[in-house]
Amino acid sequence: MATLLLNADMGESFGTWTMGQDEAVMPFVDLANVACGFHAADPDTMRRTVQLANAHGVKVGAHPAYPDMVGFGRRSLAASPAEVENMVLYQLGALHGICVAEGTQVHYLKPHGALYNDMMKEEAVLAAIMRAVAAFNPTLPLMLMATANPQPAQELAEQHGITLWFEAFADRAYDAAGFLVPRSQPSAVHHAPGVIVEQARRIAAGEPLAAIDGSPLRLTAHTLCVHGDNPESIAAVAAIRRMLDSMA
Amino acid sequence: MATLLLNADMGESFGTWTMGQDEAVMPFVDLANVACGFHAADPDTMRRTVQLANAHGVKVGAHPAYPDMVGFGRRSLAASPAEVENMVLYQLGALHGICVAEGTQVHYLKPHGALYNDMMKEEAVLAAIMRAVAAFNPTLPLMLMATANPQPAQELAEQHGITLWFEAFADRAYDAAGFLVPRSQPSAVHHAPGVIVEQARRIAAGEPLAAIDGSPLRLTAHTLCVHGDNPESIAAVAAIRRMLDSMA
Amino acid sequence: MATLLLNADMGESFGTWTMGQDEAVMPFVDLANVACGFHAADPDTMRRTVQLANAHGVKVGAHPAYPDMVGFGRRSLAASPAEVENMVLYQLGALHGICVAEGTQVHYLKPHGALYNDMMKEEAVLAAIMRAVAAFNPTLPLMLMATANPQPAQELAEQHGITLWFEAFADRAYDAAGFLVPRSQPSAVHHAPGVIVEQARRIAAGEPLAAIDGSPLRLTAHTLCVHGDNPESIAAVAAIRRMLDSMA
Amino acid sequence: MATLLLNADMGESFGTWTMGQDEAVMPFVDLANVACGFHAADPDTMRRTVQLANAHGVKVGAHPAYPDMVGFGRRSLAASPAEVENMVLYQLGALHGICVAEGTQVHYLKPHGALYNDMMKEEAVLAAIMRAVAAFNPTLPLMLMATANPQPAQELAEQHGITLWFEAFADRAYDAAGFLVPRSQPSAVHHAPGVIVEQARRIAAGEPLAAIDGSPLRLTAHTLCVHGDNPESIAAVAAIRRMLDSMA
Repeated sequence: MATLLLNADMGESFGTWTMGQDEAVMPFVDLANVACGFHAADPDTMRRTVQLANAHGVKVGAHPAYPDMVGFGRRSLAASPAEVENMVLYQLGALHGICVAEGTQVHYLKPHGALYNDMMKEEAVLAAIMRAVAAFNPTLPLMLMATANPQPAQELAEQHGITLWFEAFADRAYDAAGFLVPRSQPSAVHHAPGVIVEQARRIAAGEPLAAIDGSPLRLTAHTLCVHGDNPESIAAVAAIRRMLDSMA
Repeated sequence: MATLLLNADMGESFGTWTMGQDEAVMPFVDLANVACGFHAADPDTMRRTVQLANAHGVKVGAHPAYPDMVGFGRRSLAASPAEVENMVLYQLGALHGICVAEGTQVHYLKPHGALYNDMMKEEAVLAAIMRAVAAFNPTLPLMLMATANPQPAQELAEQHGITLWFEAFADRAYDAAGFLVPRSQPSAVHHAPGVIVEQARRIAAGEPLAAIDGSPLRLTAHTLCVHGDNPESIAAVAAIRRMLDSMA
Repeated sequence: MATLLLNADMGESFGTWTMGQDEAVMPFVDLANVACGFHAADPDTMRRTVQLANAHGVKVGAHPAYPDMVGFGRRSLAASPAEVENMVLYQLGALHGICVAEGTQVHYLKPHGALYNDMMKEEAVLAAIMRAVAAFNPTLPLMLMATANPQPAQELAEQHGITLWFEAFADRAYDAAGFLVPRSQPSAVHHAPGVIVEQARRIAAGEPLAAIDGSPLRLTAHTLCVHGDNPESIAAVAAIRRMLDSMA
Repeated sequence: MATLLLNADMGESFGTWTMGQDEAVMPFVDLANVACGFHAADPDTMRRTVQLANAHGVKVGAHPAYPDMVGFGRRSLAASPAEVENMVLYQLGALHGICVAEGTQVHYLKPHGALYNDMMKEEAVLAAIMRAVAAFNPTLPLMLMATANPQPAQELAEQHGITLWFEAFADRAYDAAGFLVPRSQPSAVHHAPGVIVEQARRIAAGEPLAAIDGSPLRLTAHTLCVHGDNPESIAAVAAIRRMLDSMA
């Protein structure tokens, strides 16, 4: 059985403004999605974050976004596919520069926020991101959302000669197609630690989840997205970590 | 006798705004100092510029700057040495990302505008830039201004394990210490094509120039900085190119 | 018969980058849509543009946009209505500050680019802009596109207690609903000076145009949008100006 | 005896990043220095801050800065006096736009960070800021630092037809010339609440302070700068407020 890796967004401070509790979460994760200066972070923050990841043996991934600091990259921007491709290359390279200075490298790429959402909805955006990864380094996996139907993304990845890493969520309810139930709906987010850990365990074990309509949902996931915003979420990450370690 | 390389600032358009005549100048130069998005350029402009350089067999160098689009990187910013080091790494990496996508690489680094001036005046800034280059790739030469006393910069470069490329100017008058006569003074800038080409020839041949006070000034230069802003300057570049080719 | 005013986008240079031929166009127009620093312009450019408008007795209007310098405000951004309202207030106020220093004031507001397009398509965006205008100064007209059905916008304006100025285009073909034929279609843009001036004359005289399907299209317009990008368009503006003056 | 007003920097959050404890401090102060989007804040943050000030009857002042989000406006930028003048006008106007929408107005101006420091050191910067205030609204006081020699600034203000408000600090040690002892020195910052309140009382009462060399220092101050970064500083503000109220 393949190990389920834990990934978390990191390095989302900006200048004098801080965000997240990177020091508290880093010990529990395998993969750090590092902001690249378009939705958060600056060169100094990026360097400190890569140093922190190194200190914990955590692999660094690029977390590129639309250029929108004030909106934290959460607002869709009608950029052309060529613009998306080049902004991803730029951010990937920028993080590469920081990583090289710290004796490490970028290991994968996970788009952020609205760019991630647009990639999941529009094939032209997904293909543009794949072109960037393929051109920079085709051995870097691209992380995207595990759904009930990974086939189309998988085929596009094969055309581009790149690898995909599918990620799932332990604290979110899914619909039958494997998409997240929108936060606007009640029961979209799991809060009970036991529920979260059990969902993580099922994903790790390859067992089906129960979708919101009760149907069984089988997600093939390489990694689980976790958060370190507050003490509650950090406790959940620690509990998932312990559970995964006990499965090993 | 070593060949004198011609370098020019390139890729200084931004979004819909254009600057410079890159297509007209590229055929005549050896080195393109490509803006990295902090004083000019955006990912699309960077990619087009690298493509243009490739098409003419011109080597690409990173041209990092203080983050100041509106001031075009010409205004000194009181950034700390660590901030300078990291902003250089970020920009170097960003251009690397674009270069890799075009099958090439960054060959050297030349700071832009106020960052260049501050580097020539403050050892802490120069050392910060050298740390960035050494950490990213110590085989990349750092370009700085040739003066009558290159020794201190040379020693600092040796401490950092990096190489220097000194650049000279064919269209500017020098003082006895090998610094440029400020533009505020009359006769600071040469306009006569014959004078410009002759100054280029002397630099290429290793012959002394006449400083503004009449004293002989011997500059050791690996490269000559040329400009492509207008028809006059492009004609000068073409004439220098022909002169250099005739010396070969 | 009411006079048809000519409006043009102005002050779209940025830092060292120039755009447009403001000096050439300003003598022919009545209204200058001045960029406010979000898609183009900076405080210095804004001040110079207001000075130029003053010198020609041209009224200044605010030309706010999404925050997107690199995309020139042409890319739609999924900002919330509250964000739109506040970004318009910010830009309106910023231009007010510059105008006051030059002894004048902002006379109207015309959104730019993607914000303009979104305003024409989404009532929530239009209402947000109207709230900004009403809160800042309800006597400032809001400029939007004249279509065959101005009623909904008119009613919304009345609810907000503000005035609308409808603008038409002399160099663009219209569909039967009064929307511009997309530039992707042939015959979307008129190039023949005679055609442009005649379309302007019909709009000024209140005579119907021929829509692309041949049907008569009556547009009620307070102002005509003209451009000053190149010699051809400046010649068209001058010709329209002469035609309008001859009608007076 | 004139009342000593308390002023504090407010609205220094940015997008999703928060800073300061504005809600906790606002009840105790008279003047809110509101960030204008160049070193901190965005249109939404500005509007919320003005609403909060209104709710507490606190007067809003513009707190303009060099354009440097990542450096929080703390890094000096070699902008020309004309650039300073126009960036101040822009920011002043932008905050005016937000204030008008909330039924209030900008009451004064206090430059931020490096712009404040440069204004205290370079007459050309001070004069540029005064030109901006005079051009926008000469009845707006300009806040600067009280020193032992306010005469030069006072004369320059008279030439520009504007009013000055001098501010003092209750938690900082002064040298004999009335400048703050640099933070790099021990005893530069007072931590004992009793010392802070007593220094505030002396300033309010017009009694001399003891400079770091023991000499008496008489500062004429209209306002006292307080901070709301942490529980300790908020307790100090509350204590100063009680002391001032008891003097009234």
